Amino acid sequence: MGLVVQKYGGSSVADAEGIKRVAKRIVEAKKNGNQVVVVVSAMGDTTDELIDLAAQVSPMPAGREFDMLLTAGERISMALLAMAIKNLGHEAQSFTGSQAGVITDSVHNKARIIDVTPGRIRTALDEGNIAIVAGFQGVSADKKDITTLGRGGSDTTAVALAAALDAEVCEIYTDVDGVFTADPRVVKKARKIDWISFEDMLELAASGSKVLLHRCVEYARRYNIPIHVRSSFSGLQGTWVSSEPIGDKKVEQAIISGVAHDTSEAKITVVGVPDKPGEAAAIFRAIADAQINIDMVVQNVSAAATGLTDISFTLPKSEGRKAIDALEKSRGGIGFDSLRYDDQIGKISLVGAGMKTNPGVTAAFFEALSDAGVNIELISTSEIRISVVTRKDDVPEAVRAVHTAFGLDSDTDEAVVYGGTGR
Amino acid sequence: MGLVVQKYGGSSVADAEGIKRVAKRIVEAKKNGNQVVVVVSAMGDTTDELIDLAAQVSPMPAGREFDMLLTAGERISMALLAMAIKNLGHEAQSFTGSQAGVITDSVHNKARIIDVTPGRIRTALDEGNIAIVAGFQGVSADKKDITTLGRGGSDTTAVALAAALDAEVCEIYTDVDGVFTADPRVVKKARKIDWISFEDMLELAASGSKVLLHRCVEYARRYNIPIHVRSSFSGLQGTWVSSEPIGDKKVEQAIISGVAHDTSEAKITVVGVPDKPGEAAAIFRAIADAQINIDMVVQNVSAAATGLTDISFTLPKSEGRKAIDALEKSRGGIGFDSLRYDDQIGKISLVGAGMKTNPGVTAAFFEALSDAGVNIELISTSEIRISVVTRKDDVPEAVRAVHTAFGLDSDTDEAVVYGGTGR
Repeated sequence: MGLVVQKYGGSSVADAEGIKRVAKRIVEAKKNGNQVVVVVSAMGDTTDELIDLAAQVSPMPAGREFDMLLTAGERISMALLAMAIKNLGHEAQSFTGSQAGVITDSVHNKARIIDVTPGRIRTALDEGNIAIVAGFQGVSADKKDITTLGRGGSDTTAVALAAALDAEVCEIYTDVDGVFTADPRVVKKARKIDWISFEDMLELAASGSKVLLHRCVEYARRYNIPIHVRSSFSGLQGTWVSSEPIGDKKVEQAIISGVAHDTSEAKITVVGVPDKPGEAAAIFRAIADAQINIDMVVQNVSAAATGLTDISFTLPKSEGRKAIDALEKSRGGIGFDSLRYDDQIGKISLVGAGMKTNPGVTAAFFEALSDAGVNIELISTSEIRISVVTRKDDVPEAVRAVHTAFGLDSDTDEAVVYGGTGR
Repeated sequence: MGLVVQKYGGSSVADAEGIKRVAKRIVEAKKNGNQVVVVVSAMGDTTDELIDLAAQVSPMPAGREFDMLLTAGERISMALLAMAIKNLGHEAQSFTGSQAGVITDSVHNKARIIDVTPGRIRTALDEGNIAIVAGFQGVSADKKDITTLGRGGSDTTAVALAAALDAEVCEIYTDVDGVFTADPRVVKKARKIDWISFEDMLELAASGSKVLLHRCVEYARRYNIPIHVRSSFSGLQGTWVSSEPIGDKKVEQAIISGVAHDTSEAKITVVGVPDKPGEAAAIFRAIADAQINIDMVVQNVSAAATGLTDISFTLPKSEGRKAIDALEKSRGGIGFDSLRYDDQIGKISLVGAGMKTNPGVTAAFFEALSDAGVNIELISTSEIRISVVTRKDDVPEAVRAVHTAFGLDSDTDEAVVYGGTGR
């Protein structure tokens, strides 16, 4: 008998009907002879409603209390789901993150899982129950306070439980059919990927693909837990994410897995930086001290005449204000002429392990962009990814052009609705 | 420095404005030099909405999951209240029933508190925090499952914490000004009671007064915790419930504390019962085996000619069906002619320790009812209470007549809004 962990996002359990539909699917998995652990997010918009309430009583809600508030959402959905399963004649018990043994650090609102001790889950399973676990939450090791795992936290809960329980697979149910070769809202001919390696999935997630978050894939790779991303609205096979293709599936590793894009970043250019050792370090120390994560960095070739250079980097738009403030504050120590802030940029990334052994991918990528009349502003590469920054308005056309150029287009327009995965 | 436990019902924290108003009041208590522990119910209609959701997924939700579901409501209100207090510049921490050390038995939906171990609350207070505790909930001693305490459970939580923390007073904030000499919706001239003994309050609660539940008063009496029932919408003194009048208050014990009424009961008459030993026992054994609590019992004088008698008793209407079924099932063993079910009854009770030493109270009570043209169907008495059953339609007039006859009317019509106390 296998052990399966299933995760259902908020859109799958948005109302009583959704909960009953999901309950049936869970019971099917149980009837197929599996032990089943289900991780569930809060219903539909519950979390947003709670955030609204918090904003009404306090402009800056404290982390500890904010986490206590938000975790109420999963309590509701998990209890309802357990009831719905019992109503179908099967035994189910629900568990909070704390009861399920999800132990975290004490960083409220974005805690990290440091241990999973699923003793109560194991007991519930051995007694024949389906175990329902609240996603997105845990309990801090030191203070025993309730914590939340931040965006995408329920996926991480599912993968962490799958690892701790040595599950055969972690199924992530969402409102799309799987991972696609590009965002189907932008590329009508995007194809569902049957299998993708952890590495390629990590690069796609880091490049703007929203189906799975980087952190969850990273966790799955570390413990080698196969993920199956699929729709809770259909019975179709979705996308398998694993180190090797699963079982008897003969899936050839594609040269290019997909094209991701991201328009959530901005670009800051530090103009007129003295071209001497330690200048770049001073700039990025100021940014790091402000707890800001940056993405791409490019330093222009220095103009010999002036001895000055420009340094550009990209970062989430939401951090833009903070970064500008941090740089202005340390302007004296660093020494630069001015700052330029540009939030009208977009990033397009081509991901695929095959590019390591296929020379010419970079050239073909740039040619496709050029043919589409798209200007490249920044370039950054990893072993299995090439990313460029362009004007934001050029992104849709650029993604379509690259998708076509690398032969990723499907033969038919696939009609899919593509949305968020909850959390 | 004193320690005060305050409890706020759902109507006091129905929305963000209510939460902010309550937060201010809590901060006042803290500024007055007290250590403050606050027990809070779920916001407004939250609990009813959760019950509705449960009904949509399952006609008979399991106790364990139902409790998990319902306790989400207090999580939300307590976290928001802590945020609102912190926003006023004071330190606050919220705790679930489990975190606050409210240990219960395992009877889901109506668990009883068996121990309170408020170590975390004590620590939070000693560190200068206001402690916010979820009412209505605890954790079971054996299985560590979340439990709820049933109707009025938040009041019981507050009194139990007050006892465990050796508080000076347990303040129950509600949407009325205190305990009245009668239900002000029925008796316009009802007066607020300044002080009432535990014993009289227990009898009022048992007789239909809804402001405080019997269980909570019983707990307070056992540990001698003074309760102050007051409005969260005004600064007025409310009603003190304690063994003796508090401090320098010179309050004379009234002969009669108040008139309570209850129209939530029904009457079952077992007709034609053989008048021999063991018959009544067999009837009430059948009822007890069905887990039904009964209230008043009357056996008619046996008719000598037939050797048969009638036995009547009252019970909550909600248990009527179950009782009739239980009696019909054991009809063969008991032996009776027929059952009569009557849900058009009402109970009026006169409560006051003074009746022990004031002969004539019973006579005056019956005279008042007679003068109002109200027929008495059943009578039951305790040392400090007389109750009668009448037609339901006669109840309002009967209550007013008795209230006037015993000199309880105030000089002016008090304008009060009288509602439930949440839970």
